[in-house]
Amino acid sequence: LQSKLPDVGTTIFAVMSKMAHEHAAINLSQGFPDFQVSPELISLINEYMKKGMNQYAPMPGLPALREQIANMVKGRYGYNADPETEITITSGATEALYNTITALVHPGDEVIIFDPAYDSYDPAIRLSGGRPVHLTLRQPDFSIDWQEVKENINDKTRMIIINTPHNPSGAVLTDMDMQQLEKIAVEHPKLLVLSDEVYEHIIFDGFQHLSVLRYPELYDRCIAVFSFGKTFHATGWKVGYIVASDNITTEIRKVHQFVTFSVNTPVQCALADYLKDEKNYLYLPDFFQRKRDLFIGKLKGSRFEPVPCHGTYFQLLSYKNISDKSDMEMAAMLTQEHGIASIPISAFYGNKQDDQILRFCFAKDEKTIEKAAEILCKI
Amino acid sequence: LQSKLPDVGTTIFAVMSKMAHEHAAINLSQGFPDFQVSPELISLINEYMKKGMNQYAPMPGLPALREQIANMVKGRYGYNADPETEITITSGATEALYNTITALVHPGDEVIIFDPAYDSYDPAIRLSGGRPVHLTLRQPDFSIDWQEVKENINDKTRMIIINTPHNPSGAVLTDMDMQQLEKIAVEHPKLLVLSDEVYEHIIFDGFQHLSVLRYPELYDRCIAVFSFGKTFHATGWKVGYIVASDNITTEIRKVHQFVTFSVNTPVQCALADYLKDEKNYLYLPDFFQRKRDLFIGKLKGSRFEPVPCHGTYFQLLSYKNISDKSDMEMAAMLTQEHGIASIPISAFYGNKQDDQILRFCFAKDEKTIEKAAEILCKI
Ligand SMILES: CSCCC(=O)C(=O)O
Ligand SMILES: CSCCC(=O)C(=O)O
Repeated sequence: LQSKLPDVGTTIFAVMSKMAHEHAAINLSQGFPDFQVSPELISLINEYMKKGMNQYAPMPGLPALREQIANMVKGRYGYNADPETEITITSGATEALYNTITALVHPGDEVIIFDPAYDSYDPAIRLSGGRPVHLTLRQPDFSIDWQEVKENINDKTRMIIINTPHNPSGAVLTDMDMQQLEKIAVEHPKLLVLSDEVYEHIIFDGFQHLSVLRYPELYDRCIAVFSFGKTFHATGWKVGYIVASDNITTEIRKVHQFVTFSVNTPVQCALADYLKDEKNYLYLPDFFQRKRDLFIGKLKGSRFEPVPCHGTYFQLLSYKNISDKSDMEMAAMLTQEHGIASIPISAFYGNKQDDQILRFCFAKDEKTIEKAAEILCKI
Repeated sequence: LQSKLPDVGTTIFAVMSKMAHEHAAINLSQGFPDFQVSPELISLINEYMKKGMNQYAPMPGLPALREQIANMVKGRYGYNADPETEITITSGATEALYNTITALVHPGDEVIIFDPAYDSYDPAIRLSGGRPVHLTLRQPDFSIDWQEVKENINDKTRMIIINTPHNPSGAVLTDMDMQQLEKIAVEHPKLLVLSDEVYEHIIFDGFQHLSVLRYPELYDRCIAVFSFGKTFHATGWKVGYIVASDNITTEIRKVHQFVTFSVNTPVQCALADYLKDEKNYLYLPDFFQRKRDLFIGKLKGSRFEPVPCHGTYFQLLSYKNISDKSDMEMAAMLTQEHGIASIPISAFYGNKQDDQILRFCFAKDEKTIEKAAEILCKI
């Protein structure tokens, strides 16, 4: 059997969560909360199931949910999205990213991505016959070298994928970054910008989330991807969405309709109601910043060195002072021998570059965070 | 914007359901029930959400659910599936079909499909750079011409897609068909068989469902696709699954993990429990046969001519005696002027062949079926 993805194994998230499970380790690897979803949201889903909302939702998503999203996007980012033609509900942000890449990347197209990069971008590009062009973020702040971007754009460059707040580093793009991006876009009218913004609400230290949807020069060529799983602590429900101009959306829906067709109906109904109340998400920056601060605070005195994190629910820790092990070995050792699972970030590099840095998810109850920090302090 | 699918519009299911909605028509177009899911199943989902099962399920699916599926497949079809390596849960059968085609069809490969064919096969093949080879089922019984199949197999033929019970015709494959298929497979060791069996439980007139999983010669090259949405009257929950040998499953999961990663967790937990009791699905042949018989019975005296249906919840009706209109025009007219929506089956033909036949979904309450038949009798 000839493989379409010969060099791809199982995603690092599945590998580490499985290892965590097998060793009963505290699982700070795959990004998901260990606290509960709002009971109100659960009972809304239950009510809609009992009311009989259990058949196919409309292919682009429930109209009421798309309208709420349009309101939110207007309020937060000043972008006027037509819910009928510019918003599409997907089976999580993963499907959103996949559909976008599949609809827009043609064989031979080049796509610029920034390593460390979320691990689905590269294989999705390759399945479309495209060529991922991996640029590396500058350390220590994981920033984009825009000069390098310009030098890597040619006739074949079709798309740039950005991600802010950035998984795994916690870096956030600034207005200066976005202006550089706008300038490049204006100079290359064929270029599309796919913006992975699943952590839009999880941003700290007074930073504002700079969605591509705030930048008018990008309106007709940007695709913004969001996630209800991240926002409402329900990664297992698999609901995300895409905002993009109508002609781009048309192409994305052509793919979506044959990939999954539609998304869980009662969950969409419940989210449409729940989204009406801003306070259901406006508390998130504070909520997660406290968790980050707790984790970092409790790590004082440990030999791990934190990389500054301004968003997402991930904290990078360097172990250069502790061991020469590869990050894969270190992650396995911590899971198997110390009962704490993390993600080795070499998995996010096309060239498997090893920074001797591990990623820890702090979307956890205080007790879990404290216990994890306690273990790490002893290493 | 250059389209990857230039000749694809919105799927006929979305088009007709939208038209039905806009004209408040009885919607017998898109295939979904208008009766309620089991309250037991709904309360199981609610319980699991309240227990906190709201985060990512394992990428290949919940182990407990895969084990139940293995039991069922063993009992029904005599196939020993290893739940760890041979069963994958997907976001509906649509994702199952899409992943399978994407993982296994390489650019330049040919794939044989039988028209009228479910409308996602062809674009999924083309998105992978494959070439769909459309053969036409023989009328009036919508049977496969195996001689024609043999003549169309060459070095590039990678896959045959079968579908039994067959949507839209209601035809079922016989043991003679399956023996022909086995013989062809043995002669062409590179050939894979993708078998769409989402209506496995909806089969009438004493016919037995002949899964590919019953045929040992096909074990190492078949991929069987199933749907909980069809079986448990919950098309809006989007849960299906794939059974295939381990090396094929490995390739399919490589795609699945980047397409959706995983499937709704509380629904998987609930299905794992609900599947334990066979009586939750063994009633289905009788249940739907009664609906078919009611629909056909009430159509006595109408000018529509039914095509014999032995499975699925679709009934084809020919309107040759009534009108010269194209099936698209006829379907639109019935929806807009008579308040009853159906599917024009030319949408299922690569060449848009028009048989002057419409497809009606009878997965409906008795009252809906009677009202629909009443309208049709007046035309
Ligand atoms: C789809 S599993 C990965 C979850 C996630 O976003 C992460 O851990 O980075
Ligand atoms: C995914 S919408 C189509 C539902 C269906 O299987 C049909 O109507 O044939």
